[in-house]
Amino acid sequence: MIDNHSSDRLPKLSFSAPETVGTGIEVHELELAPFGIALAPFKANRSTVEPDCSSPVDSHLVREMWFIAQGEGELVYDNRSVRIRAGDACYFEPLKAHSVRNDGTETLVVFSIWWS
Amino acid sequence: MIDNHSSDRLPKLSFSAPETVGTGIEVHELELAPFGIALAPFKANRSTVEPDCSSPVDSHLVREMWFIAQGEGELVYDNRSVRIRAGDACYFEPLKAHSVRNDGTETLVVFSIWWS
Repeated sequence: MIDNHSSDRLPKLSFSAPETVGTGIEVHELELAPFGIALAPFKANRSTVEPDCSSPVDSHLVREMWFIAQGEGELVYDNRSVRIRAGDACYFEPLKAHSVRNDGTETLVVFSIWWS
Repeated sequence: MIDNHSSDRLPKLSFSAPETVGTGIEVHELELAPFGIALAPFKANRSTVEPDCSSPVDSHLVREMWFIAQGEGELVYDNRSVRIRAGDACYFEPLKAHSVRNDGTETLVVFSIWWS
């Protein structure tokens, strides 16, 4: 359950310090742990991809959803290419490889959530 | 399970036609149904709040998280006021009233997910 101390910090949630996972790619994990396992049936992060940079190809058992917050790019999913832009939502089935290239002019910002 | 026909449309997900829920407030539901209940342990939408407009005060049993995609505003949560801006994530506990006023100059865009 959520304790009183953590509750006082709501509604804003914190992100971890950025982890650089490739050239021009930073990942900030959403810090759900202070609020306990009851908080959410998923994990989440916020990633940024700078122009002319590509996220590492990712493939995993967990299901994943992306909410595109800013920018645009070319998403390769299961060997197919689709345009994505701010406002879009995407879903990745288990073990389907996915990567995005920012071919726009502004930073691409993606909120990701994933679950078993 | 996800049928082949729906699977062919992935990875992009669709949003419903906008529903106007107040002056300058539009809500687009994320259409998860075509992909079956197995898709996600939550529901989701994308809302827009125009400058100088406020979302209706909302309060409900389900837990909710907001990902702020664009813009900024003043969020009132449980009678406390906090600044939110693009990149932020917020969490609302059950039955805690929340509303946001866009006091910035661009459209405020919020991805919301909620679950029991």
